[in-house]
Amino acid sequence: MFTKDIYINRRNQLRSDLKTERKDFKSGLILLPGNQDVSYNYQKNTYRFRQDSNFLYFFGLNKPNFMGVLDLDSGEDWLFADDFDMDDIIWMGDMPKVSELGASVGVIHTAPMSELQNMIAKAVDEGRRVHFCDPYRGKTRHQISQLIGFRYSSLKNFASKKLIAAIVKQREIKADYEIAEIEKACDIAYEMHTTAMKMAKHVGTYEYQIAGRVEGIAMEHGGTVSFPVICSVNGQTLHNHYHGNKITEGRMLVLDAGAELDNCYSSDITRTVPVGGKFNDRQKAIYEIVLAANMKAIEMCKPGIKYRDVHLIACLTIAEGLKKLGLMKGDMLKAVEHGAHALFFPHGLGHVMGLDVHDMENLGEDFVGYDDETKRAKEFGTAYLRFGKKLKEGFVLTVEPGCYFIPQLIKQWHNEHKFSEYINYEEVLKYLDFGGVRIEDDILITKDGCRVLGKPVPKTVADVEALMAS
Amino acid sequence: MFTKDIYINRRNQLRSDLKTERKDFKSGLILLPGNQDVSYNYQKNTYRFRQDSNFLYFFGLNKPNFMGVLDLDSGEDWLFADDFDMDDIIWMGDMPKVSELGASVGVIHTAPMSELQNMIAKAVDEGRRVHFCDPYRGKTRHQISQLIGFRYSSLKNFASKKLIAAIVKQREIKADYEIAEIEKACDIAYEMHTTAMKMAKHVGTYEYQIAGRVEGIAMEHGGTVSFPVICSVNGQTLHNHYHGNKITEGRMLVLDAGAELDNCYSSDITRTVPVGGKFNDRQKAIYEIVLAANMKAIEMCKPGIKYRDVHLIACLTIAEGLKKLGLMKGDMLKAVEHGAHALFFPHGLGHVMGLDVHDMENLGEDFVGYDDETKRAKEFGTAYLRFGKKLKEGFVLTVEPGCYFIPQLIKQWHNEHKFSEYINYEEVLKYLDFGGVRIEDDILITKDGCRVLGKPVPKTVADVEALMAS
Repeated sequence: MFTKDIYINRRNQLRSDLKTERKDFKSGLILLPGNQDVSYNYQKNTYRFRQDSNFLYFFGLNKPNFMGVLDLDSGEDWLFADDFDMDDIIWMGDMPKVSELGASVGVIHTAPMSELQNMIAKAVDEGRRVHFCDPYRGKTRHQISQLIGFRYSSLKNFASKKLIAAIVKQREIKADYEIAEIEKACDIAYEMHTTAMKMAKHVGTYEYQIAGRVEGIAMEHGGTVSFPVICSVNGQTLHNHYHGNKITEGRMLVLDAGAELDNCYSSDITRTVPVGGKFNDRQKAIYEIVLAANMKAIEMCKPGIKYRDVHLIACLTIAEGLKKLGLMKGDMLKAVEHGAHALFFPHGLGHVMGLDVHDMENLGEDFVGYDDETKRAKEFGTAYLRFGKKLKEGFVLTVEPGCYFIPQLIKQWHNEHKFSEYINYEEVLKYLDFGGVRIEDDILITKDGCRVLGKPVPKTVADVEALMAS
Repeated sequence: MFTKDIYINRRNQLRSDLKTERKDFKSGLILLPGNQDVSYNYQKNTYRFRQDSNFLYFFGLNKPNFMGVLDLDSGEDWLFADDFDMDDIIWMGDMPKVSELGASVGVIHTAPMSELQNMIAKAVDEGRRVHFCDPYRGKTRHQISQLIGFRYSSLKNFASKKLIAAIVKQREIKADYEIAEIEKACDIAYEMHTTAMKMAKHVGTYEYQIAGRVEGIAMEHGGTVSFPVICSVNGQTLHNHYHGNKITEGRMLVLDAGAELDNCYSSDITRTVPVGGKFNDRQKAIYEIVLAANMKAIEMCKPGIKYRDVHLIACLTIAEGLKKLGLMKGDMLKAVEHGAHALFFPHGLGHVMGLDVHDMENLGEDFVGYDDETKRAKEFGTAYLRFGKKLKEGFVLTVEPGCYFIPQLIKQWHNEHKFSEYINYEEVLKYLDFGGVRIEDDILITKDGCRVLGKPVPKTVADVEALMAS
C-alpha cells in the first residue's frame, strides 16, 4: 500500500516543483531532517519517538536519527544515518542496515551521518541554496544550525518559502490510501469517545480516570493520541489539559481527543456530554445551538467554497441561537461582522488534518490555511481560524464549532461595555457557571460535497443520552 | 505533607553546602531551570509536560516555564516566570499569579522571566560563579547558553561539580514522605503487572495491546509511566521498545514497566512470564536461576555493603546456575572476575530511584553511583552497573538481575572463542531462540537491612502460574 514508488514519486514531484528552469543556475539541496529522540527527565529516558511528518511523508522511515537530502541538480536522493553496533543491538535490538532501509523506500544513496556535513559544506561553497523548513525542536534547530552555519535563533528567517509551498501543495491533497488510514484513526476515536461517555455517567469519577482510559485505548491499537487529551468539566477553557477534577452533576464533560496510528495518521473528535447521562434544559439549549452550527457547516462544505465563509455561517448560527435564548440582541449579521460572537466562540471552525493533527502547522498556518485569494482576518476570534481558503477535493479537515462561557473574558468585556449593542450581559452573567460545549467531526471534501470520516460517534441529544444509558 | 518548609529547608541546605567559607570571596548563584514544553510534531503540539526533577525537588512547582535561582551571597531565593494573560486564560485556563505560586513554596522574590538576564549578567560582571547542571533538552541548553554566554555545545564542560555533589547528597536519601509516594507508584505497578500477566495468558495477543493497557493504567491514576514500557517476547533485547509482535506459545513475555505519579515519584518493576500461563522445563530452569539471584541480592542489601559486591554475588549466582545447566564451566568465581557471565547478564544489578526512575542520572552516573571509595569498573557488563557504592539507610534502588540469550552477541563471542574456558558454546547455541528473563523489584535500605516496596507482584513460578490461571 505505502509502496516505495509512492515515496519516489513524492520526492520527484517535490524536486520538480523546486527546480529552477534557468539552465545557468544551480538549484541546490533540500534538507529534510528526521526527528531525534527527545529527553523526558534525563538524557536517556526519552519520550515516545515521533517522526517528523515531512520526513515521514517523503522518506517513509519511522526511526530516529535520519537525515534526508534531495539534490535538485543531480536528481539524487540521499539518506544519512548510522548502522547499529553491538551495543545498540544488545540494548535496542537489531535494525536493518541503513542501505536496506533506504532501498525499502527507493533511496539508493546512503551514508553515515558524519558525511552529511561535507555534502552541505560543498553545496554552500558552490553557492547552492540549502532549502529547509523552520524546525520545532531544540535539537533539530541546533543540528541544522551546525550544518548550514546559520545561528540557532535566526533559522526561521531563512526557511525556504518555496519549499514550504511545494510541500503544502502535495500534502494538503490526501490520496485514497491516506484517507483509509485517517479513517482507521477515526474508528479508534469512536471507541475512545463512546467509552468515555459511558464513564461520564458515573458522578464522582475523576477526569484523569477517563482521560487515562481514553489514551490507553489509543495505545492498545499500537499508536497513541494525536495530541494531549482534553477531558474537562471546565470546557470553557479551550485547551484544558488539567485532569484533576471530580465530575459532578450539572457539569458537562468536554472530551476532545483523537488517535494517532503507528504510521502517524490522526483523528480529532470532540463530544460534550452531561455528567450523569441526562442533559438539563439549559445544557440542551446551548448544545442544540452548537450542534446546529456543526451540521450546517458540514452541509455547506464542498470544493470551491471558502472555509472562512463556512466558519462565518457557523458563527451566525451560534449568534442567532444565542439571540433566541436572550443572550445576544440586535442584528446578528452585523454582530458577527464586528466579532461580537467571539465572546462565546473565540476560536476558528477547524483545521486541516493528516500526518499532523493540525496538518503541516509548523510550516506556518498562513502558508497552509491561506493564500493570495484568502488572507487571514485580524479580528479576535476569526483571527484564530487556522484555515480559511477555498476547499478542494481531497482535503481532510475538522468542523468544530463551540460555545463557551469564559468568566474572565465575560467580566472583562462587560467592564469595557464591549459590544453591548449585541450582548445582553445581564443574561450572560447567569451562565458564568455553565462551562462550554464543543462538537467536532472530521470530514473529507469529496467531488461534490463532503463526508464525515469514521464510525459516527453519537452527537444528537437523543443519541448521546441513549449511549450513556446503555 | 509537601509543605513549603520542606522546600525552604532543601534550598537552605543546598545553599549552605555550596557557600564558600572565605569571607573575602563571593559564592555566586545557583541556576535551577524548570522545564519547558517539548514539541511533538509541531511547535504547539506538545508532549505531556515533565518538570525537571531538580527544579521540582527544590522549588516544588510542576508547571512549565519557570527558572529558579539561589543567591548564595544574599541568601535570597528567586523564581522567574510570566503571569498568564487573557489569551492564556482562554486557551489554557487560569493560573495563580507567579507571586502566589512562589509564596506557596516559600519563595518571596519573583519576577518576570525577562529580568533574569539582568541578574545573571550582573553576577557574571561581578565575577561571581553561576552554578548549573548540564541540561538534557535542546531548549534548556539554548536557554542557559543564552543566559550565561557559554556555547550550546560546551555547557557540559562547565557544569558545576560542587552543585552536583550537593544535590546528590540531599536527593539520594529519601525522607519518609517521599518513600510513601514511591510506594504508591509501586502499588500502581502491581496493577499494571498483574493485568499484563492475565493478558499474556492469551496466545495471539499483540504486545502493543498489553503495553497500551499497562500504560493506560498508569494514566488512569493521574500520572503516566516512568519510562517507555518494555513489553516484549524478545526479552533478550534489554530496552526493547518495539511492540509489534504477536505473543506465541513457547516465548516468555518480559514486562519492564513502572508508574510515575503526577508529582513524579516513580516505580520500576520487571516480571517475565510464560505466554499461555505455564512455564516449560527450559524456561523454568533459567527463571529459577534469575529468581535466586534476585532473592539472594535482596537478602544481602543493608547499610554499609557496596552495591557492586551485591551485583557480583548476583553474577555468581547466575553463573553457578548456568554451570549446573551445562552452559558454563570451570571456576565460576574466576569467570565472574573476568566478566564471562556478562554474555548472559550484560547489565548492572540496579540503580537508584526517586523523582527520576534512574534517579539523578543526568547529573552523571559516576557522581551518583560511585565515589572515591568505589570507582566504576571498566569490564563489559559490570561497566554498565549504574550504581556501585556503599548503601545507606534511605536509599531506594532496583534489584534486577537477568539472563539473556542475545544471538548476535553469542555468535560474535563464539567466533572469537571468547572465554571458551568458561562458556560451553555447544550448549549455549541451543538457546538462541530462548529470549531473556529479568526479575526486578524496588527496595528501600532500612536501618539494618532492606524491604521490598509496594504490594508484592507474584514472582515465584507457582505464584506467577497461579495468578495467570486466575
